[in-house]
Amino acid sequence: MLKLKVEGMSCNHCVMAVKKALLKVPGVERAEVSLEKGEAWVEGKAEVEALIRAVEEEGYKASPLA
Amino acid sequence: MLKLKVEGMSCNHCVMAVKKALLKVPGVERAEVSLEKGEAWVEGKAEVEALIRAVEEEGYKASPLA
Repeated sequence: MLKLKVEGMSCNHCVMAVKKALLKVPGVERAEVSLEKGEAWVEGKAEVEALIRAVEEEGYKASPLA
Repeated sequence: MLKLKVEGMSCNHCVMAVKKALLKVPGVERAEVSLEKGEAWVEGKAEVEALIRAVEEEGYKASPLA
């Protein structure tokens, strides 16, 4: 499981936008996003860089979490 | 032109959700929404109550502006 810090989400529309973006990344089987925590979790075999890029293309800041 | 105060919008997704909701109200010919001002403007012959209801169904608070 890959975990990202996601900054800039302000509402549930943002959550859905990030979730959809993550689900489009090759290898992603499941994606969950928490507005309260400002985090996303991804299951599958995606590359972290691709996940970060996808989130950032939606207009949010993303970084890997340990 | 009808003008509404719209509370609770936090991002451009919210703006689009409110705009789309207003455009679906019978009689609405044009709808513009400002995130910064927290306001919406509607052109057409819609009923204020229907506009307010449409915005509130999207999860925001709406009230008539003079």
